[in-house]
Amino acid sequence: MNTSPPAPLRIGIAGLGRMGRRHAENLAFRVRGCRLVAACSPVADEREHARRELGVSRVHERFEDLLADPEVEALVLVTPTSLHAEQTIHSLESGRHVFVEKPLALDVESCLRAEEVAARLPRQRAMVGFVRRFDASYAQVRHDIDAGMIGRPFLVRSQTCDMNDPSGFFVRFSPTLGGIFADMSVHDIDIARWYLGGAKAKRAWATGTVAIHQGLREHGDLDNGIAVVDFDDGRMATIYASRTFAHGHETTTEVIGTGGSLLIGQGAERDRVAIRDAHGVRRIATADFYARFRDAFVAELDAFVAACRGDGELPLTLSDATEATRIALAITRAVRTGEPQPL
Amino acid sequence: MNTSPPAPLRIGIAGLGRMGRRHAENLAFRVRGCRLVAACSPVADEREHARRELGVSRVHERFEDLLADPEVEALVLVTPTSLHAEQTIHSLESGRHVFVEKPLALDVESCLRAEEVAARLPRQRAMVGFVRRFDASYAQVRHDIDAGMIGRPFLVRSQTCDMNDPSGFFVRFSPTLGGIFADMSVHDIDIARWYLGGAKAKRAWATGTVAIHQGLREHGDLDNGIAVVDFDDGRMATIYASRTFAHGHETTTEVIGTGGSLLIGQGAERDRVAIRDAHGVRRIATADFYARFRDAFVAELDAFVAACRGDGELPLTLSDATEATRIALAITRAVRTGEPQPL
Amino acid sequence: MNTSPPAPLRIGIAGLGRMGRRHAENLAFRVRGCRLVAACSPVADEREHARRELGVSRVHERFEDLLADPEVEALVLVTPTSLHAEQTIHSLESGRHVFVEKPLALDVESCLRAEEVAARLPRQRAMVGFVRRFDASYAQVRHDIDAGMIGRPFLVRSQTCDMNDPSGFFVRFSPTLGGIFADMSVHDIDIARWYLGGAKAKRAWATGTVAIHQGLREHGDLDNGIAVVDFDDGRMATIYASRTFAHGHETTTEVIGTGGSLLIGQGAERDRVAIRDAHGVRRIATADFYARFRDAFVAELDAFVAACRGDGELPLTLSDATEATRIALAITRAVRTGEPQPL
Amino acid sequence: MNTSPPAPLRIGIAGLGRMGRRHAENLAFRVRGCRLVAACSPVADEREHARRELGVSRVHERFEDLLADPEVEALVLVTPTSLHAEQTIHSLESGRHVFVEKPLALDVESCLRAEEVAARLPRQRAMVGFVRRFDASYAQVRHDIDAGMIGRPFLVRSQTCDMNDPSGFFVRFSPTLGGIFADMSVHDIDIARWYLGGAKAKRAWATGTVAIHQGLREHGDLDNGIAVVDFDDGRMATIYASRTFAHGHETTTEVIGTGGSLLIGQGAERDRVAIRDAHGVRRIATADFYARFRDAFVAELDAFVAACRGDGELPLTLSDATEATRIALAITRAVRTGEPQPL
Repeated sequence: MNTSPPAPLRIGIAGLGRMGRRHAENLAFRVRGCRLVAACSPVADEREHARRELGVSRVHERFEDLLADPEVEALVLVTPTSLHAEQTIHSLESGRHVFVEKPLALDVESCLRAEEVAARLPRQRAMVGFVRRFDASYAQVRHDIDAGMIGRPFLVRSQTCDMNDPSGFFVRFSPTLGGIFADMSVHDIDIARWYLGGAKAKRAWATGTVAIHQGLREHGDLDNGIAVVDFDDGRMATIYASRTFAHGHETTTEVIGTGGSLLIGQGAERDRVAIRDAHGVRRIATADFYARFRDAFVAELDAFVAACRGDGELPLTLSDATEATRIALAITRAVRTGEPQPL
Repeated sequence: MNTSPPAPLRIGIAGLGRMGRRHAENLAFRVRGCRLVAACSPVADEREHARRELGVSRVHERFEDLLADPEVEALVLVTPTSLHAEQTIHSLESGRHVFVEKPLALDVESCLRAEEVAARLPRQRAMVGFVRRFDASYAQVRHDIDAGMIGRPFLVRSQTCDMNDPSGFFVRFSPTLGGIFADMSVHDIDIARWYLGGAKAKRAWATGTVAIHQGLREHGDLDNGIAVVDFDDGRMATIYASRTFAHGHETTTEVIGTGGSLLIGQGAERDRVAIRDAHGVRRIATADFYARFRDAFVAELDAFVAACRGDGELPLTLSDATEATRIALAITRAVRTGEPQPL
Repeated sequence: MNTSPPAPLRIGIAGLGRMGRRHAENLAFRVRGCRLVAACSPVADEREHARRELGVSRVHERFEDLLADPEVEALVLVTPTSLHAEQTIHSLESGRHVFVEKPLALDVESCLRAEEVAARLPRQRAMVGFVRRFDASYAQVRHDIDAGMIGRPFLVRSQTCDMNDPSGFFVRFSPTLGGIFADMSVHDIDIARWYLGGAKAKRAWATGTVAIHQGLREHGDLDNGIAVVDFDDGRMATIYASRTFAHGHETTTEVIGTGGSLLIGQGAERDRVAIRDAHGVRRIATADFYARFRDAFVAELDAFVAACRGDGELPLTLSDATEATRIALAITRAVRTGEPQPL
Repeated sequence: MNTSPPAPLRIGIAGLGRMGRRHAENLAFRVRGCRLVAACSPVADEREHARRELGVSRVHERFEDLLADPEVEALVLVTPTSLHAEQTIHSLESGRHVFVEKPLALDVESCLRAEEVAARLPRQRAMVGFVRRFDASYAQVRHDIDAGMIGRPFLVRSQTCDMNDPSGFFVRFSPTLGGIFADMSVHDIDIARWYLGGAKAKRAWATGTVAIHQGLREHGDLDNGIAVVDFDDGRMATIYASRTFAHGHETTTEVIGTGGSLLIGQGAERDRVAIRDAHGVRRIATADFYARFRDAFVAELDAFVAACRGDGELPLTLSDATEATRIALAITRAVRTGEPQPL
């Protein structure tokens, strides 16, 4: 008897901006077990790109039409943050699996509403794009922690640092991003929780500065921020976010335990090439987070698709997203009030 | 007017052993613009795997049947080395594009015969799997050389070093591999030629030892070999091959020019994780060449498929394979005779 | 006319414990322009060591006798912290130059009293042993900052992490050391001030844990501590101190500016040797702070002696020590109260 | 009973050029257990420097006068290579210990004559300045080999590469240096022998090029040379010498064994500082061999002085120097004849 492999998962994507297009290309060409059958964007050029370059035949202008498309089994949401939670809920209620880019929302209430809907509909998968969990190095560290390699982990030091964009292009978007911590540090927060074994955050403290992009001041935002989070049982995390690195994007995470430590990403090398010339012995750094996590962006959708097709569990839930948002908001309050925030 | 993308290239693969299966999986799931429509293997389990896991419906026992399969536009040959040249010729003469694993042959005459056939049939693509050219770091170095970053390159130092297999499994295959240099160093030779800008080899010298696997002595083979090749215009290459590394697979290549040098692969890190514990500060090395060049194996078939579909030129020709074989044979003669070999 | 070099500075050392003996050996054999002529220690064995191994003929039991020794031009104080300020004052008042180990005191008032005496006696040199300023790498970074290599520095991240001593020997001394920050982090604090161009500290926040050495709890001390210090003009420092590192001593400092960053000490390699074996590719870390700063301990006394002999200025003053103590105390209060401390 | 320490060894130095001055300063200020009491140089300025800066009172113009100086117990010879062997012999015959800079001679016969004299006078110490043996990293590797860390060592890969001097100043001295291998590679040869456990060289092969300094061609010399030496029992060494590195001086040595490998000097970092800026993540390399081996130059004289004073054995003999010269000469013949040279 011939057991044919299960049919590919039919996916529709909402949002074809910079990140949306990348996800769409991955879904069209690199993610296993799926087909990108539909897409929606309010931008005509983006729709045309999906048709022509990605071979997507069902292209919609409005999210509602994508939601009504009967060909779609799962939705990938790469829309503005303010829409994430609502669209997640609608996707689930329309019977679809849903993958939503981080953060799930900029307020805890919206996160909890999405969680509730997901809990009511356990047959549908819902996942937030905490892409680092799917990076080979980040996954290896979790594996090593579980194997006892560093004893009891008690401190995570993590940073997300972008190469400076002298144009300050991002300054105008600052208000919609919820501040530097909500935009950049949710990844670090999620990883800290993951590596500290589900520790419960108790208190947050933060500070920061505007080193270069003075325009951020009017939004009450920073281009360099530092946070310290105390978890229960004496576990801690320190987080650094910068938008002004000179040499490239450098995401690093260190987890320190009673028997050793593991450090990811030091050096941020673009590739395996060392250059030796009048500037010394040098490595070129990765240009941006996408160059750093290119493979992980495929792997996270591989995992999502596999779980939707009944092959494996999702390694994270919407409540992970809620908790990351809750901590990021406390950090943001701490920096604004100058007072440590209980959690 | 709608310009639909060209149809996928229909590929048949010959050989489903360890490397054949990897190529087949890449063709089935990762390489863009193609479909793996047919496969052949004398081994029933391998054929079954192709059917069940890779969804290949046209599965043959004999190469002749694959060659006769009208669905196949291009052949990927991952068969024993002794068959490479002949099968390449038959593939071309039957009107197919052909990708053949390295080395093209263990004698120059066979290489030249394949070259001649390829020259007669210029509409069909023929390419040997010098996978390193498609590795991001190796390609970057060629790009940097072309950009003048190191002045005039005059020395390449390259090594291919495998982690020791205490079982000595490979000893029994030694005779069919043509010796350590023909098996392992053809990659280094090809890269040296590529980086030295088409330099012409003039003389080879070599030495070596059996450090661990005494069984190699009866085949006149080595488990550690060193070669020096003089090219024209004072350009040089030194090559090291080892089957006995303790910590992992370490392929490194350094190219030294009058204005700087570029070094690929030092450290051979498996990932971006540093471990700090009682053993010091350490990185785990890649386990084997496939772990090291996983992405490049996809990229080389991406390039092959694209060229077959009229999109881009192949970056290497069968004459590159001939030259690599010619030099590897001279090196092998040098180590056996104890005399420098003119080229 | 023959200008003979100035006579060597005649030095007496107080304290011949672990660090005292090291300073004494440096003064006897490695520091230029001085002679170790006298020593004092309450421990008979230590006095005997000074006589026999270091060739010191004038060996005293009590500090008062050393202070009264007419042969001594300068004093090097390596006594318990609680004596530092008072002995510094007495040394100055007796007409001697004085070098005192860090910290100058565990309270600001004592520091200020010593500062006042030193200000009254400007012909005598007074210096605290902030040894890192004399390390070649730390000095190079200050030089690079001054040369504008990283633009405006706004963030220093610095850590002092000792290899875990499973015996917990240090736990009993914890009360006399003033807590982990006063003992270990004064170095980081001093360096942060130095690299941030004399920034004025405004606020401190801290947290920490007892990861291993439970005995510290009864002294209200920690074995891992984290502090954040805000300086004026948006400059910041984060400080980490650990007594529980598994792989060795790792002091690192990073200074981040608007145009780049400089990082000292990453990896903490003992030497230039990389080991490749079954544990991976690894470096052995420095065992302790003395192995790390061995040369700097000589260089700081070279600088002190030169300044006493009229050759060059001291690169730091007692007010640097006062400020480091003031900040360390605020950090210590922050961790105890859970409240950010103004400065 | 008081056992006073032995009197310092009274040293005279011959030669106060670039290296001579460095040795003299080390003897005057850094080497333990000795006093620099005498010096000779044909250059008036150099003699004045010794008097004024180093406090040497007995300063001679001619070597014969130094040799006749009754105050001198040991001689340090930093004279032109062509004088080394003869002056070594005269020093020994006049009853002095002798330290001579490498190489001992550019012909084997002179080496052997010096060896014979030294053998006749076993109470006097004679040592050649193979400084690398006294470098902490090189010594550590020998220690690790002896401890069995890498099994049986069978391959040494070693290089001595100087930063390019665009002025080509060294070209005019090329004839007196005996060619690139005799000048630079004797260090690598000595280390290879040391790490391979006294292996006996059997055959040498070499090649090379003039990459930049065309003036070397008229002397039959090279600015980049490669050598391969076969030792007995299948042990091997590859050696690379370059005068044209772009980024700094990089001496590296790798020793490969059946159970692992040890690598010294990769990266050649000047200090512990990493720079991250528009050029990437980079380290500055050591400028020259003296910056790299500064401490080892002191340590080798520490060892020499200690041995002269009866404290410890010399770790190398004149026969090590003879063997290094013998191999360097064979390499030089190999590159000139194009034929492998038996040894």
